[in-house]
Parts: sequence; C-alpha cells; structure tokens
Amino acid sequence: MLPDLDFLDELAEASARETLPRFRMGIDVDNKLAGDFDPVTEADRAAERAIRALINARYPDHGILGEEYGAEGTDREFVWVIDPVDGTRAFISGLPVWGTLVGLYRNGRAVMGLMDQPYIGDRYVGGPDGAFSRFRGGDRKPIATRKSVALEAATMMTTSPWLYGEADFPALRALEAATKLSRYGCDCYAFAMLAAGHIDICVESGLQAYDIAGLIAPIEQAGGIVTDWRGGRPEQGGNVIACGSRELHAEALDLINRPR
Amino acid sequence: MLPDLDFLDELAEASARETLPRFRMGIDVDNKLAGDFDPVTEADRAAERAIRALINARYPDHGILGEEYGAEGTDREFVWVIDPVDGTRAFISGLPVWGTLVGLYRNGRAVMGLMDQPYIGDRYVGGPDGAFSRFRGGDRKPIATRKSVALEAATMMTTSPWLYGEADFPALRALEAATKLSRYGCDCYAFAMLAAGHIDICVESGLQAYDIAGLIAPIEQAGGIVTDWRGGRPEQGGNVIACGSRELHAEALDLINRPR
Repeated sequence: MLPDLDFLDELAEASARETLPRFRMGIDVDNKLAGDFDPVTEADRAAERAIRALINARYPDHGILGEEYGAEGTDREFVWVIDPVDGTRAFISGLPVWGTLVGLYRNGRAVMGLMDQPYIGDRYVGGPDGAFSRFRGGDRKPIATRKSVALEAATMMTTSPWLYGEADFPALRALEAATKLSRYGCDCYAFAMLAAGHIDICVESGLQAYDIAGLIAPIEQAGGIVTDWRGGRPEQGGNVIACGSRELHAEALDLINRPR
Repeated sequence: MLPDLDFLDELAEASARETLPRFRMGIDVDNKLAGDFDPVTEADRAAERAIRALINARYPDHGILGEEYGAEGTDREFVWVIDPVDGTRAFISGLPVWGTLVGLYRNGRAVMGLMDQPYIGDRYVGGPDGAFSRFRGGDRKPIATRKSVALEAATMMTTSPWLYGEADFPALRALEAATKLSRYGCDCYAFAMLAAGHIDICVESGLQAYDIAGLIAPIEQAGGIVTDWRGGRPEQGGNVIACGSRELHAEALDLINRPR
C-alpha cells in the first residue's frame, strides 16, 4: 500500500526544520569534489538524515537512495529517492528557488513525489489521487499542466546552457530558437511550474535519479509528460524533458533528435 | 526633505494589491513590441497607476518616470523612477523572482530605493538611514553586502547570457570564467541578494533607468558599489555592474575593460 500524501507533508516539514534555519545565514559551504564546484551544505545532510529517519521508522522494508548518504535496499519493491536540497547553488546564493525532492519508486517506476520550497511556502505533490499544490499550510489544490500550447508559443526553462555537453548543446539551442520564451535558473522549481501550468517545457541534461525522482509523479498526475530525450522513462535521470501535453512533447522530442 | 521608509512600504503594498491577484492566474499577456517578445501584463499597468497615484497625492511637486506610463516632470529636483514589475518573463512563468522597483532620484542621483517581492514577502529598501530587509511585515533588519571576497571566490549573477550584444558577450564570459560560481535568471532579485550579502557580483547589459533605479540606494547603503561598466554613475542604466566591495568592483571592472 502506498503512503498517503500526509506522509509527504511530514517529510517536507522535517526537511524544512533543517534547511530553513541554515538558509541565508552565511552557512559554510563544503566542496564535495575538489576542483569542481559542488556545494554541499550542512542543510543538505541534516535534511536527508531527517527524511531517512522518518522513512526508516514508518517503512522499514522500503529502500532509500539519497544524494548525500547513498543507497540502502534499492533492490526492494519500494524505494525512496531523495534530494534534500536540489539547487544547492541557489541555496547558497540566497535565492529561494531550491527545493526538497522526494520520490517513491515502485519496482523502478515513480508513483509518488514531493517538491517543497519552504522559504516561500510552495509545495507540490503527486500520487495516485492526483497532483496538488499547497501554499503555506493551506488546502491542497489540484494542479494541471497547460495544454494546447504549440512549440512556437511555448515557454521553456533549463538551469544553464553551460551544463550541456558538446553533443547536447545544439539541441538545446534549437529548442530555444523554436519556442517563444526561454529562461534559465531554477532547477526543480521550473518542473513544479510546469506541473502547475505556468510553463510548457523543462529540459535538462545529465540529471541524477534524485534530481528528477520527486518531480515525476506531480508532473504525470497533473497531465504532463516527462521522459528522457529518447522518449524512455525518466526515473534514472540523464537527459530529461518534461512537457505540458503529449502533443508538445512529441514536437519537442522530434526537434531534439533531428540530425544536425 | 526625503520621504521616510514607511512611504516606500506604502508604495510596495499598493503595488502588491495589483500584482498578486494577477500572479499565477493565467493572465493575458500583451505584446508591447510586435515581433519581439516583451510581455506587459495588466499587473504592470495597474501597479504603476497605483504607485503614481500615491506619489502624485503625497508629492505633487515631484517628477515621475515609469516603465508603462512614461515621464512627467523629469526636470524637477526629485524624480521617482518606477518599474512596477521588473522581470515580467519570470512573472508570466509563475516564478516569484520578479519585483516592484521604485527609486527616488534627487538631481539625478539615487537617494532612496525599494525592491519588493510580494509573493515571497521579501522587501529591500535603502535610504539616508541605511539599507534594510523586511520579511512578511516583520521588523526592518539592517543588511550589508559581503566583503573580503576576491574575484576567484565570488558568486556572480546575470539574467541571461543572450541579452549581451556581440561587443559585451566576451566580457561576460571572462567574468564568468574568473569567478567561482555564476548563475542566470532572477533580474532585480539578484541585486537584492547582493545588497543582502548572499552574492558578490551582479552584471547586466542594456538596462533601462527603471531597471536599476530602485536598487541603487539599497546596494549603496548596504556598502556595495554599483556603476556602469566604465565606473560611472548607474542612474541612467545601460551596462551595469554591482559588487559587494570596492576592491571586488575594481577587480571586476579591470577584467571587463581589458582589451580582448
């Protein structure tokens, strides 16, 4: 049996108790990889510990894969996939567009997901009963992606053009040229905006599973499509594209995969 | 005599009454310039009308320059410079990193300024008594820029690399290569993060006066430096750079203006 959405709220609140006191506080930033800038904050670690503790207590037979503390029992039927602070660069820059991401996979397929931005108070969840947003503890409101937007009228987002390798950069630029408006920044927050119907396309390259896990169910339950760049399932990350409608997704995928 | 900071709060609240109900509501977006995507929302117009009405009622002898409704009395000693929704692309994408900007110029020099992000509840003001942040109606707290950060350790932000012309793009890329971390997106919000000490450098090209007017006093009163790319006053916009300290500003300006 799947957890109910209240459990995702519990995870979000436990995480926020660790992240918020450390946001905009001049925290120390570690470098996980020498020579390559990959900030990991105490917030990241403490939040993941809090989330893992709740999951282990409630669902001791579930597996967990987390950005900070790795894998345990990932061969089980249910596996939680956690990015406690997606957008650590935003976090250390004081920008409240980072988020806590938690996805639940069943036999490798995303069935529930959470994106929480606790400074703003914006929360997005998806599960078998649908996709919802919740603002500062208010009621859950159903969300839906924006439909009937053609590629040339679409708004797209990606985190940064420089995260694309040489092979993928031309596809990004082609997509930007074909859409009406493209914006950078925002990591997971952009995918939440897509689920809630504010933008039409999110595209990223080189994601880890935990970068996308919490976002799949909210997007799919809101009526959107999220796949890798070949149209396959997105649960393992890599190059990922999300669109508000199946038609737009087909158009965008065709453009990305055109020989150039 | 200068207005007090409470008057800036009044302007922010009048603006928010017009912007917030139209944010994330599937508003109609007009195109101001045919063929060039420049969204102007009803929020933009209504907020500027509300701000102008308050200024005209309280300071009938002051001039006003606004993004939407143009100039009146801009040859007077005091002139208010207004961008009701800076970051209209963020606004229509559902991203709460747009802001209401209001600056007060005295004989052409910024003496007070406001940046307000009402969805989050983040407000930044500057005036003769200093620079302050205010979160959701709480107390005003003094802010200060981050000092003692060398160029190679600095975090920088700009809205998008594609907003730079051919002549300016290499300077942006050189600055990105010389700093530790660079991020895109966020328009005025990035300058507020600089004033509050979270990031070190903001750089933009081709700004209008109203894009920067409300940000100058908060940055300067917080201890930062904001100039054009030649080191001159920034009140008229153009290519603008803001830094947390005078030393960093000198380093960055030297790099930008190096022959290449």
